[in-house]
Amino acid sequence: MDLSKYIRDVENFPKEGVLFKDITPLLLSPEATREALRQLVAQAEGLGVTKVAAVESRGFFFGSLIANELGVGYVPVRKKGKLPYETISMEYDLEYGTDVVEIHADAINKGDKVLIHDDVLATGGTAEAVMKLVEKAGGEVVLMSFLMKLNFLHGEEKLAGKTVKCLFEY
Amino acid sequence: MDLSKYIRDVENFPKEGVLFKDITPLLLSPEATREALRQLVAQAEGLGVTKVAAVESRGFFFGSLIANELGVGYVPVRKKGKLPYETISMEYDLEYGTDVVEIHADAINKGDKVLIHDDVLATGGTAEAVMKLVEKAGGEVVLMSFLMKLNFLHGEEKLAGKTVKCLFEY
Repeated sequence: MDLSKYIRDVENFPKEGVLFKDITPLLLSPEATREALRQLVAQAEGLGVTKVAAVESRGFFFGSLIANELGVGYVPVRKKGKLPYETISMEYDLEYGTDVVEIHADAINKGDKVLIHDDVLATGGTAEAVMKLVEKAGGEVVLMSFLMKLNFLHGEEKLAGKTVKCLFEY
Repeated sequence: MDLSKYIRDVENFPKEGVLFKDITPLLLSPEATREALRQLVAQAEGLGVTKVAAVESRGFFFGSLIANELGVGYVPVRKKGKLPYETISMEYDLEYGTDVVEIHADAINKGDKVLIHDDVLATGGTAEAVMKLVEKAGGEVVLMSFLMKLNFLHGEEKLAGKTVKCLFEY
């Protein structure tokens, strides 16, 4: 099954000159979703994952599926102010300004082996912040999992020393 | 298994005087998540669901799980401007101002039997807009599925004629 057929190119989104990789055709196909899930879970084999942390919002599409398939707890990583309970947070730089990612303070236990999932590894800014956030909480990041990696943005350099896996590379 | 133990009360979120029902303890427990999923899927039995539409962002937690379990396509319902491809949209009133929900124009086919899922039915404003959006796209709304319903806000009145199911009522 060629999953790449389910990724749609959309020109000039979110801004002029950007070619956006749209994963919603993949979500619309239950067969393609299952095959993508099977491959994402296979990439985690033998790592002893105890928690899956997925990044708002597109990381949520496969995040809960991966956690459920692995039979481990699910931790939503959200933008500042969205989580109701006590949080720990990590600030990171954007092209202009800064942003903050948060998890609940009780979401990760010391020693948890954490799979971090998001849809796309682009510049790596968010991914690096989530990685640091999980480590600040006492977790060990055992896999950085993405649906796709945009190699021309070199995001993997920000995740040096971590295992990075994806289903598609562009 | 008493799933209600996995819903945490958080006072004064998102604003003073509001008691927020936090579902993240449920997500942290793989056993509780599986049982919640089993119950949500059981509520859809016999309805012939062909698509699951889930509402940004907390609806995404169980949305993809329900779709995967039912073996049907998954449609993310998002706020204005978040979906990259051609969309159809529905505006609705908030306490102050308006908001817009969108789906991709190719997400729902005429005759699709759609399960709409969100975490909470509160005033019903968003749920009603999503219901109208799915119908505008040609779908038939066969189930309005929620983790919980806040009865004192009477949201169900806005969904008259639809089947509404939830796991918890407050």
